[in-house]
Amino acid sequence: MTKWVYTFGDGTAEGSSQMHALLGGKGANLAEMANLGLPVPPGFTITTDVCAYFYANAKTYPAELKPQIDAALKQIETITGRTFGDAQRPLLVSVRSGSRASMPGMMDTVLNIGLNDATVEALVKDAGDARFAYDSYRRFIQMYSSVVLGVAHHHFEEAIEIFKEDNSLNLDTDLSAADWQKIISIFKTKIAEVHGSPFPQEPQAQLWGAIAAVFGSWHNPRAKIFRQLHNIPESWGTAVNVQAMVFGNMGDTSATGVAFTRNPSTGAKELYGEFLINAQGEDVVAGVRTPQNITEAARIAAGSVQPSMETALPDVFDQFVAVADQLERHYRDIQDVEFTVERGKLWMLQTRGAKRTAKAALRAAVEMAQEGLISQQEAVLRIEPGSLDQLLHPNVAPESERDVIATGLPASPGAASGEIVFNAEEAEQLRSAGRKAILVRVETSPEDIHGMHAAQGILTTRGGMTSHAAVVARGMGKPCVSGVGALRIDSERGILSAGPVTLKRGDIVTIDGTSGKVMRGAIEMRQPEVSGEFGTIMQWADKLRRLRVRANAETPADAEAARRFGAEGIGLCRTEHMFFGAARIAAVREMILAEDEKGRRAALAKLLPFQRSDFAQLFEIMSGFPVTIRLLDPPLHEFLPHTPEEIAEVAKAAGVTPEHIRHRAEELQEFNPMLGFRGCRLAIAFPEIAEMQARAIFEGAVDAKRKTGQAPAPEIMVPLVAIKPELDVVKAIIDKVAEAVAAETGEMIAYTVGTMIELPRAALKAGEIAETAEFFSFGTNDLTQTALGISRDDAGTFLGIYISKGLLARDPFATIDQQGVGELVEIAVERGRKARPDIKLGICGEHGGDPASIGFFERAGLDYVSCSPFRVPIARLAAAQAAVGGLAPGEDS
Amino acid sequence: MTKWVYTFGDGTAEGSSQMHALLGGKGANLAEMANLGLPVPPGFTITTDVCAYFYANAKTYPAELKPQIDAALKQIETITGRTFGDAQRPLLVSVRSGSRASMPGMMDTVLNIGLNDATVEALVKDAGDARFAYDSYRRFIQMYSSVVLGVAHHHFEEAIEIFKEDNSLNLDTDLSAADWQKIISIFKTKIAEVHGSPFPQEPQAQLWGAIAAVFGSWHNPRAKIFRQLHNIPESWGTAVNVQAMVFGNMGDTSATGVAFTRNPSTGAKELYGEFLINAQGEDVVAGVRTPQNITEAARIAAGSVQPSMETALPDVFDQFVAVADQLERHYRDIQDVEFTVERGKLWMLQTRGAKRTAKAALRAAVEMAQEGLISQQEAVLRIEPGSLDQLLHPNVAPESERDVIATGLPASPGAASGEIVFNAEEAEQLRSAGRKAILVRVETSPEDIHGMHAAQGILTTRGGMTSHAAVVARGMGKPCVSGVGALRIDSERGILSAGPVTLKRGDIVTIDGTSGKVMRGAIEMRQPEVSGEFGTIMQWADKLRRLRVRANAETPADAEAARRFGAEGIGLCRTEHMFFGAARIAAVREMILAEDEKGRRAALAKLLPFQRSDFAQLFEIMSGFPVTIRLLDPPLHEFLPHTPEEIAEVAKAAGVTPEHIRHRAEELQEFNPMLGFRGCRLAIAFPEIAEMQARAIFEGAVDAKRKTGQAPAPEIMVPLVAIKPELDVVKAIIDKVAEAVAAETGEMIAYTVGTMIELPRAALKAGEIAETAEFFSFGTNDLTQTALGISRDDAGTFLGIYISKGLLARDPFATIDQQGVGELVEIAVERGRKARPDIKLGICGEHGGDPASIGFFERAGLDYVSCSPFRVPIARLAAAQAAVGGLAPGEDS
Repeated sequence: MTKWVYTFGDGTAEGSSQMHALLGGKGANLAEMANLGLPVPPGFTITTDVCAYFYANAKTYPAELKPQIDAALKQIETITGRTFGDAQRPLLVSVRSGSRASMPGMMDTVLNIGLNDATVEALVKDAGDARFAYDSYRRFIQMYSSVVLGVAHHHFEEAIEIFKEDNSLNLDTDLSAADWQKIISIFKTKIAEVHGSPFPQEPQAQLWGAIAAVFGSWHNPRAKIFRQLHNIPESWGTAVNVQAMVFGNMGDTSATGVAFTRNPSTGAKELYGEFLINAQGEDVVAGVRTPQNITEAARIAAGSVQPSMETALPDVFDQFVAVADQLERHYRDIQDVEFTVERGKLWMLQTRGAKRTAKAALRAAVEMAQEGLISQQEAVLRIEPGSLDQLLHPNVAPESERDVIATGLPASPGAASGEIVFNAEEAEQLRSAGRKAILVRVETSPEDIHGMHAAQGILTTRGGMTSHAAVVARGMGKPCVSGVGALRIDSERGILSAGPVTLKRGDIVTIDGTSGKVMRGAIEMRQPEVSGEFGTIMQWADKLRRLRVRANAETPADAEAARRFGAEGIGLCRTEHMFFGAARIAAVREMILAEDEKGRRAALAKLLPFQRSDFAQLFEIMSGFPVTIRLLDPPLHEFLPHTPEEIAEVAKAAGVTPEHIRHRAEELQEFNPMLGFRGCRLAIAFPEIAEMQARAIFEGAVDAKRKTGQAPAPEIMVPLVAIKPELDVVKAIIDKVAEAVAAETGEMIAYTVGTMIELPRAALKAGEIAETAEFFSFGTNDLTQTALGISRDDAGTFLGIYISKGLLARDPFATIDQQGVGELVEIAVERGRKARPDIKLGICGEHGGDPASIGFFERAGLDYVSCSPFRVPIARLAAAQAAVGGLAPGEDS
Repeated sequence: MTKWVYTFGDGTAEGSSQMHALLGGKGANLAEMANLGLPVPPGFTITTDVCAYFYANAKTYPAELKPQIDAALKQIETITGRTFGDAQRPLLVSVRSGSRASMPGMMDTVLNIGLNDATVEALVKDAGDARFAYDSYRRFIQMYSSVVLGVAHHHFEEAIEIFKEDNSLNLDTDLSAADWQKIISIFKTKIAEVHGSPFPQEPQAQLWGAIAAVFGSWHNPRAKIFRQLHNIPESWGTAVNVQAMVFGNMGDTSATGVAFTRNPSTGAKELYGEFLINAQGEDVVAGVRTPQNITEAARIAAGSVQPSMETALPDVFDQFVAVADQLERHYRDIQDVEFTVERGKLWMLQTRGAKRTAKAALRAAVEMAQEGLISQQEAVLRIEPGSLDQLLHPNVAPESERDVIATGLPASPGAASGEIVFNAEEAEQLRSAGRKAILVRVETSPEDIHGMHAAQGILTTRGGMTSHAAVVARGMGKPCVSGVGALRIDSERGILSAGPVTLKRGDIVTIDGTSGKVMRGAIEMRQPEVSGEFGTIMQWADKLRRLRVRANAETPADAEAARRFGAEGIGLCRTEHMFFGAARIAAVREMILAEDEKGRRAALAKLLPFQRSDFAQLFEIMSGFPVTIRLLDPPLHEFLPHTPEEIAEVAKAAGVTPEHIRHRAEELQEFNPMLGFRGCRLAIAFPEIAEMQARAIFEGAVDAKRKTGQAPAPEIMVPLVAIKPELDVVKAIIDKVAEAVAAETGEMIAYTVGTMIELPRAALKAGEIAETAEFFSFGTNDLTQTALGISRDDAGTFLGIYISKGLLARDPFATIDQQGVGELVEIAVERGRKARPDIKLGICGEHGGDPASIGFFERAGLDYVSCSPFRVPIARLAAAQAAVGGLAPGEDS
C-alpha cells in the first residue's frame, strides 16, 4: 500500500529533511524538527505524490488517502488531547501548502479549520476571551469562503463596512464579541446567497475542502508565473501540511516572530529577527504594528524603546536561542525560523535555509568554516558563483529612487550613469573633457570599441546576452544593457525615446547591467567592497579546483585586471581588437583596399610594429603564464567605414575615390558573415596576414624575453578550422616565420600551434585535426551558433519566445547546451585525446565564465576555462565547486 | 627481393590487366594482350613502385633494378633474335611512360633507343633504305637530346634550316641519305657545344637516360596541371615501358593506325578508325597526310578515293578484325587500339577502354547487354550518371563558332540564347511579346522566381553552384551560369560589361550552363534526343536500385516533369515558392506588415485558397505517390520589397506609408539570415501561419481525394528543428488542424509529420526527435552550411581558393562531405532508427541529385533521395549503381 501521509509531532516523525521531494520543504523540515525533539505542533504531511495523482485523475484522490488521513488526525488528537469537531476540547488545524522549492505566498493557506458554531464556544472558554474567539471564527469564515468556496473578499469587507456604518463604529477594534457574532450571521447569509449552499459546519468537510483548495492552488496564475520565473517544473507538485493550531494571540504571554540565526544582510553571527507580543504571524508581516527586536543588543543598536524578546519573555528567549543554535548546528547553515509562543510555551512552526545577500553568504560561509561548523570545501560550495558579481561591480543603491524608462537584457553586470552619446567619437570627447558618457547604439561593432572604452557603460537596442556589445562590455568589466527593444534611437536628431519619454544627447541616464533597467537621471550607486572573506574563499577554491582559469584579454589594462583577479594566463587574445587605434585602422584599411599582395604586404608592414609591441606587453604582464593568441578572425568588411562621412575621410587618407571604397565594401559584403570569409580562410587566401601576425608574436616574445629574462610561452591559435588541411597550411606559415625570427634574432621561442574547435565538423574530425594541433580551444559561441543554427546577433527575435513558451530552459549562449553542443565537445575531447594524449584542452567562449557550463567542462575533462577578466573569480569558484562535484545552481541535474 | 620489372612478349607475360596500379594502364594491357597470344612487340614494364622510390630517394633507383632490367632486356633479345647495341642485328627499343590513369601526351617518350653510329648501318642494311635509316637516326638524336639531355628543339630546327638554305633545298623530303648524315654530324657538334659532352653512343647509357627522363616527366608542369584537373594523386607515379621497336614505315606493306571497336560517337557496332600506309604513329596524328579508312563500308560512307585497309592489306585486315573482336570480347567493352604493320606483320601496340560520347555509351552498353557480352547490371554500371545531362538538355552545337566573353560556374546544365534583361519584370514582358530573355542578376532571390520562369536562362555575377539562382534553375531545368565574377552589371544604365566588351539591354547572349561559358550572340544549338536505349537503361536501373527517387517540385509543371522523368513522389515541396504570384505576394506582405495576430490571420485567410488549390493539384498529379510538403522556411524579410519603387507600390497597395514598410523591413533585417528567424521558428512565433498551411494541405487533400477517388498521402515536414519541443509544438498545431478539417469535411486524410534534419544538433538528437518525427528528410545543404560553417552564398570568395590549393577535393555543396556531414547523417540514421525502427529516411538537399552523394546515401541506408525533376534520371541510374556497389565516378574510394 502506498504511504500518502507522513505524521510528525511529540518528538518523533515519519519523515525527515531528506524527503523534501516527497514532503515539500516545509513538511520535511517540520518532520526533522520533530525528530530533533523540538516543540513542533503535531500534524501530518500529505505527499506531493497525492498532488500528482490529483491532477492525473480529474482532481480525485487515491482510495487509501482517506483512512490514512483519519489515522493521522487521530494521532494529533491523541497528542493534543483534543478532538476534531469536539464541542468541549475541539482540535483546530491549519492546512498549508509546501512545495519542494520555496514559493512564498504563491499558494493558499487555511487556518483554524474545525471552527464552527459549536466549537467556537469551546474556544471562547478555552481562551477566556469571547471577542478573540468570534473574531477568529469570522476570520476563518472569510478565509475559507474566499479560498475554498470562491466567495470573493469584497462581499465580506462590504458587510463589515455596512455594519460599522449602521452601528457608527470606526475601527475593527471598536467591534465587540457580540458585534462579531452578528457579523458572522450576516456572513452566513451572504455565503448561502452567493455560494448557493450554507457555510460548512462539518469539520471533515472543512478539512477536505481546504486540502482540495491547496492542491488546486498549485495551478493558480500566481504560482504558474512564479514557477516559470524560477524554472520550477510543474511536475513537482505541492505537498499539504495539516497541523494543530497554536495561537500567538492568547494574551501577553503569547507572541509570534521570525528570526535568522545570523544576520542575512551582513552574515554576522547574531540572532536577527522580530516578534510581536499577542499577535498572529500575519501581524508581523502586515506591518500594522511595529515589530520588536529579539535581542537586547539589536534593540539597543536600533534605538528602539519597545522591549526585546530577551527582556519581555526571558525564559522563552533562552529556550529559543538554544533551539536556533541547535537548528543552525544541525542544518549547518543559517536558518530562517518562524515561531509562536502560546501562553509561555514556544512552538516552532518552520525552519529553512535563510536567503542572504552575497556579502552575507560569503562572511557566514567563511566564519562557519572557521568555527568548524562546516569544512572549507562546504564553505566554497555555499557561495553561488554568479553572486560574486554583486561584490565586484558598483550597483544601484537599493534604497535609491529610480525612474525606469525601459528594460533590456542584463548583459554586463554593474551600474553606471552618464550623458547620452550616440557614437564612439562623442564618448571619447566627453572622456577628454572629464565627463562621463553612456554609449547608446543599435548594436556595436568592432569600430565602436574605443568608444566603449571611453564610456561608463553601453546601452544597445538590439542584440542578446552574447551580442558584440555584451561580450565586449563583460570583457571590459563595464555595465551593459542590451536588446532594449522599447527604445528608439534617432542619432541624427540626437534623440533617444522610450514610448512617451524622449531624452536627448547629453541627458543623463543610468543603466543597471545587473537588472537590465534603464533609468532617467543619475541614481545613487553603492561601490563594491571586496572583503577579506573574498580572498579567503578564493584561496580555498583554488586549493580545490582542477580546472585552470585564464582570461580573455587583449589590452594591457585587461591583462593586468585579469592577473589581479587571479587569471593563470590568457586563453584568448583577439588580435583584431588591436586593429582599431587610429594609426592601425588606417593601415588595416590600406591592406584591405590594396590591389595585390605587394600592396597588402606594404600595409601589413605598417601594422607589424604595433602588433609586436602589443604582444610584448602582454607577454610581460603574463610572464610565467601561457598566452593564447588567435590569428585574425572577423571578416574584412568589419574594418571598412560605413557612413558616407567616414568613407570620404578614409578615401582621402588612402588616396582613393570614395567609389573605390564603396565598391570594395560591396565586394566584401556577405549574406551570412558568420559563415563567411573569415577565420583561417583569411590566412589561407592572404598568407601574408598570418605571416605578419606570426612575426609580431615571435618578435614580441623575443623582446619580452630580453626585457624580463623569462621566455614567454605563446600558444598560437588558428580560428574557424573545419578541415585539417587548413590548420596544416597555416601552421606551415607560422613554423616558417618562427624559424626565420629565430635565425634573425638568435632567440629560440618555444611555442605551440593549435586551433579553435568552433565548427561541428571540427569537433567530429578532432582526431584528425589533433594530428597537427597541439591544443584545442573550444569556441562554444560559434559552436552553439552552428550546431543549433542560431545567429546570436539575430536570436533576440525568437529565443525569448522559446524561453517564455518553455521550449528552452535557458539561453544556450549563456549556459552551454549540454545535450547538443556538449556532445560535440565530448566527441572532440575523446577523439582529440586519442590522437594526441597530451593535447591541451580549453574553452574560450562566453560559457567559460558561466558556472553551470563550468560544471560541464569539468566533467568533460578540459584543462582550463578562459573568460572575461571580471568573471575570473566566478570561474575560479565555479571550477572548485565543479571539482568537488557540487552542482552549480541552474545546472542540469 | 622486390620485383621491379615485368616482362611480356611471345605469347606470355608476367603482368596482367588487373595490375594497372603497378604497371600503369599501358603496361598492364600490353601484358594482357601478350597473355592472350596477340602479336605484341616484346618488352618489359618498370613498375610505378620504382617511380615512388625514385622520388623518395633523390632520383636514384633500387639496387635490384639494374640486374632485373638486364635480364628483361636479354629476354627481348632472345625473342627478337637481336642484341642491344649489336652492330649486325641491333635491338632498338622504345621507352614510354604509362600511368594508372590515362594522361595522353603529358609525359615523355623516346623511340629508337639503341641507334648509334654503328647500329644505324645495320638499320640501313636491314631496311634496305639508307635514307630511312639516317632519317630515323637524326630523329632519334633530336628527340633524345631534347627529352633526355635538355638541348632545346630550336637548335636542331635551326641547323636543318641553315643546311637547307646553304644547299638550296626546300622540303625535308628533298634531303637525301647523305644530307641526313651531314646533319647528324652537325647535330653532334651542336650537342657537344650546348650540352657540354657528346651525344651518348653507348645504348645502355641511352636506355638509362631515357628511363630517368620518363620518370622525371611525371613532375613536368603539363603533367602536374593535368593531374590537378583530373584529381589524379601525385603518389600514383608512372610506370615505364621498354619495348622492341617495330616500324610501320618500312615500305608499302607496312602501315600504322588507330581504331575503335565500335563507333565512339554513336555507339554503333562497326570497326571505326584510320590508318596510313608506310607511316609512323605520329603521322596519323600529325595530319600531314590524310588517313585512310579501315573498312570499305566506312570508305564508301566517307566518299573517300583512297583504298581502305580492307582492300589494301586484306590479310592483315582480316587478322586485325579478329584481334579487335577478340579484344572487345575479352575486355567486354569498346576498345581503342593502336597497331603497326611491319612488312605485312601486324603488331598490337596498345589497347584501352575507348572514350565515348554519352550517346555512344548508352547505345553500346544496351547493345552489348543485348548481345550477351555484358549483363544488364554491367550495362547500367557503364553509364556515368552525370553524362545523362548531355542527353536531356539542349547544348551548344560542338562545331559552332563562339565568342566567349566570360566564364562562370556551370550551375545548371543546358544552353540558351536570348536578349539580356536585368529584372524579372523585363523577362516577363519579353515572354509576353514572344521573345526570349536571359535574366542577368548579381544574385537572384525568391522574388525573381517568376522572372526565372519567364527567361530562357539565368546568368548571375555572384553565388556558387548552390546559390539561389543555381538551385532554382536546376529545379526548373533551365540553364544557369552563376558567379561570373568578370562581369559587371549596371542595371540602371542597362549595361553588362566584361572587360572591354560592353553589351546592353536587349543584346543577344548565349549561356552554356554545362560549361559555364557566356557567349556573345546567338549560337547554334543541338536539341536533346532521347533514344530508346535511354528508356531501356532506366528500366534496368529501376530493377536494380533500392533507393526510391523523388523530386523537389512545387508547380504543376515541375510535378508533371518529375513524373515524366520517373519520380516516385515529391520529396520536397517548398511552400514559399508558391507565395510569389501577384495576388499571393500581396497577401504575404499584408501578413508580414500586420500589427497583430488578428491582422495576420486576416491576411492568411486570403492565402489559404491559393495554397489549397496548389496542394490539390500536386496531390492529383502525384496520385498514388507520397508528397512531402515543407512548411514555410525562409525568413519573412525575403518577401518584402527592396527598391524604393517597389516599396512605394506595396505601401500604396497595403494602405501604409513607405516609411512603415522600411521600418518593418529594418526590424526584420538580420545579420545572418541563414541562422535567423526562419524555419519552425516562424511557426512557433506565429502559429497561425502553420495553421493556415496545415489547413490548406488537408483541405487540398480532401479536394484531391474527392476528385481522383484516391486519398493522397501528405507528409508534412517541419523545417530547421534543433530541439525536440519545436517539433512537438508544431506537430500539435498540425494535428489539431487535421482533426478540425476531418470534422468539417467528414474526410479522414492519413498523414505523417516529420522534420528536416538540417542542423548538427538535430542530427545528434535524432533519437529524441524521432520520438515525435515519423520521417526525417536530411537537408544536407543547410547541414553542410552549419557543420562546415560555410554560407553557400558567400563561399565563392574562398571555396575556389581551397579547391585550387588542394585543401578540398571538391565543392562540399555539390558532393556531400562524407567525413563530416556524412558522419552527422550516419549518427542521425542510427539514432533515429533506434528510437523508431520504421522511420522513413530521405534526403532533399542538392546532394540528392549528385551520383557520388547518392552512393553515400545508399550505404547510409536511406529510403529515398529527392532531387530536381531534371536530375531524376541521373538519380535513378546512380541509385542503381550504388545498389550493386558500383563506384560512381568521383566518389571517395
